[in-house]
Amino acid sequence: RINPDRLWDSLMEMAKIGPGVAGGNNRQTLTDEDGEGRHLFKKWCDAAGLVTGVDRMGTMFARREGTDPDLPPVYVGSHLDTQPTGGKYDGVLGVLGGLEVIRTLNDLGIKTKHPIVVTNWTNEEGTRFAPAMLASGVFAGEHDLEWAYDRKDAKGLRFGDELERIGWKGDEDVGGRPMKAFFELHIEQGPILEDEDIDIGVVTHGQGLWWLQVTLTGKDAHTGSTPMPKRRNAGLGMARVTELVHEVAMDYQPDAVGAIGHVEVYPNSRNVIPGKVVFTIDIRTPHENVLNEMRARIEDGIATIAEALDIGFEVEAVGHFDPVTFDEGCVKAIRDAAERLGYSHRDIVSGAGHDACWINRVAPTAMVMCPCVDGLSHNEAEEISKEWAAAGADVLFHAVVETAEI
Amino acid sequence: RINPDRLWDSLMEMAKIGPGVAGGNNRQTLTDEDGEGRHLFKKWCDAAGLVTGVDRMGTMFARREGTDPDLPPVYVGSHLDTQPTGGKYDGVLGVLGGLEVIRTLNDLGIKTKHPIVVTNWTNEEGTRFAPAMLASGVFAGEHDLEWAYDRKDAKGLRFGDELERIGWKGDEDVGGRPMKAFFELHIEQGPILEDEDIDIGVVTHGQGLWWLQVTLTGKDAHTGSTPMPKRRNAGLGMARVTELVHEVAMDYQPDAVGAIGHVEVYPNSRNVIPGKVVFTIDIRTPHENVLNEMRARIEDGIATIAEALDIGFEVEAVGHFDPVTFDEGCVKAIRDAAERLGYSHRDIVSGAGHDACWINRVAPTAMVMCPCVDGLSHNEAEEISKEWAAAGADVLFHAVVETAEI
Ligand SMILES: NC(=O)NCCC(=O)O
Ligand SMILES: NC(=O)NCCC(=O)O
Repeated sequence: RINPDRLWDSLMEMAKIGPGVAGGNNRQTLTDEDGEGRHLFKKWCDAAGLVTGVDRMGTMFARREGTDPDLPPVYVGSHLDTQPTGGKYDGVLGVLGGLEVIRTLNDLGIKTKHPIVVTNWTNEEGTRFAPAMLASGVFAGEHDLEWAYDRKDAKGLRFGDELERIGWKGDEDVGGRPMKAFFELHIEQGPILEDEDIDIGVVTHGQGLWWLQVTLTGKDAHTGSTPMPKRRNAGLGMARVTELVHEVAMDYQPDAVGAIGHVEVYPNSRNVIPGKVVFTIDIRTPHENVLNEMRARIEDGIATIAEALDIGFEVEAVGHFDPVTFDEGCVKAIRDAAERLGYSHRDIVSGAGHDACWINRVAPTAMVMCPCVDGLSHNEAEEISKEWAAAGADVLFHAVVETAEI
Repeated sequence: RINPDRLWDSLMEMAKIGPGVAGGNNRQTLTDEDGEGRHLFKKWCDAAGLVTGVDRMGTMFARREGTDPDLPPVYVGSHLDTQPTGGKYDGVLGVLGGLEVIRTLNDLGIKTKHPIVVTNWTNEEGTRFAPAMLASGVFAGEHDLEWAYDRKDAKGLRFGDELERIGWKGDEDVGGRPMKAFFELHIEQGPILEDEDIDIGVVTHGQGLWWLQVTLTGKDAHTGSTPMPKRRNAGLGMARVTELVHEVAMDYQPDAVGAIGHVEVYPNSRNVIPGKVVFTIDIRTPHENVLNEMRARIEDGIATIAEALDIGFEVEAVGHFDPVTFDEGCVKAIRDAAERLGYSHRDIVSGAGHDACWINRVAPTAMVMCPCVDGLSHNEAEEISKEWAAAGADVLFHAVVETAEI
């Protein structure tokens, strides 16, 4: 069994970097705070005797040698970046849980045949630079490296430049590594495990997603002196699309979700009818046909709404992944570990996207989930108990060690 | 008649200060650019032999003495501040039109009995600091001076501090000045005059307004893993209120308008359901009972929408004026001037708010309007012709001089 206090202390220590305004964290990707978090993680890896390296996407790899160094390593990890008003556990638990696997092996003096590599993937959250899971996406061959470097944040800063600025652009190639398996521990970010009072979620599938960035173009005009029939109100268009996305998601729920989280209004003045709005639709479902049906209904609806309001529209896909089916062997290793350790468990579909979803394309992959209070995540109030974290890390430890072979 | 070329050249000269991104202006109130525009205006006033002063709200007064200095002056003016993506004429035409009245009197060597004072009112637009027409509102006794100083912009900067920073906090008392009359020339900002091919709008009334700042409070949560029925989506609430405001305005149009121009979404991340939104509703109509009915329907609707979505709400009035009836005598002076000069004219209701709306409370007041292309304003593409400007300034000249008496 892993050491629950040590794991918890490390979580609390990391949470001191990039504190939020309400008890959580703001450690967005490629900010100075992200750099600081990486240094702390590296310090811990060094202390645990790991050999660290960084690839050209800034992803960190910390390797514990196997008794047979030629065997493909077992990878374990997640991400240290957070939402602007994020929690202390989303991502961090998976990285520090991986480190706890190593520390426990060190405590017990256990050598594994396969090397074990703890990983911190760059820009999982996707808030500052869309899409989410960017570095694992490049790793898995989904995105091109130069394309990733060209992603821009709201201020127009390039991903590649910011990676260099914080000093974490490594020289190792992105991807192409032999990998026996990849395991990711993560908080559920949804309410199922807590509601059913279950310790461990064995993640068998992940939802597919589209992020559609919509630009509606009307005409800035005076709110007071422009007659109603002469208006080309892009803000009203956004309101109607927001309602449409909600309706479409409601039609397919509980097997689908949809919302708009990101909005820019121009010129954003109290007495100017919005001449332009830019916003991103987020739709998800575990069923590929549903995902495509939702997208088609929404795109048709946008065209109809725009026509009725005499406004222009543009829809650009800025994020996408297909629904994921995780590797049967890895899933079984997790389920068996939970069973062996006596934790209650159930199979579960991941509502969120994870680095594991991309890595699953290039190596056998699965995920362990632990509950979080009220299913709340992407919120500074995100909370878990030390016992939940310990159970997740225990299962992770057993699945990793079994796969890496003693 | 006034000098059309001189007026136009001054308009173009002023437009060089605080250029926008698309041919218009961004000379928002109490920015460095606002300060620069004031210096240019003062230079012109000095050159025209006017005695200038500034009150504690930063409003500028440039006086041409009358043959009887003890008689109450005739005031004429408007504002030099602009929207963030504003035009070159909104406000500026009224100030420089007032200056052109003086320059023409100087050309002709005409002395008036009453002094004439050209005025540049501070913060007419209300974008940076709500409410609009702030300085004329304090002047008219509607707002308290200290309350005005405490208005904050989006960055939290205080009006009073910014006024001092740009060096235009004067020492003259705000209001309490004897005033024979106030005349304001302004572009229509609506399409009626151009559509009907009419030179001059004789403004008899102004619409009343409410600015209602609404805060909806839901709960930030993950867009992917939060089940639809568990969501408390403040962004969806905003969408419904936007549609409601539109519907209510449509029910009363053409005698009412309504829209939402200003929106803030928190935390504004693609994969976070908005936990909080703040936005400002703008509703207007010339009829007091309609204005109150619209407000009541909207407030009721917000409560219903919030309840259905399990979100909290707060509504704060951040701007208000009652519908305005301008002074009969001043209105007649304008109508007579247009008639005498042979310009086509019609009576018109101002869709926008103006400093004249407040000054009308403390002195006989009226407005002259000239057409603008497509009725477009609060847009960098706002446009008028030199002839339209000249006609408006001619009528202003005659109304002012008749009232100031030769
Ligand atoms: N786990 C997580 O919150 N990932 C961010 C990407 C997503 O929006 O699903
Ligand atoms: N004239 C003008 O645009 N004034 C700004 C105040 C308003 O919104 O009506």
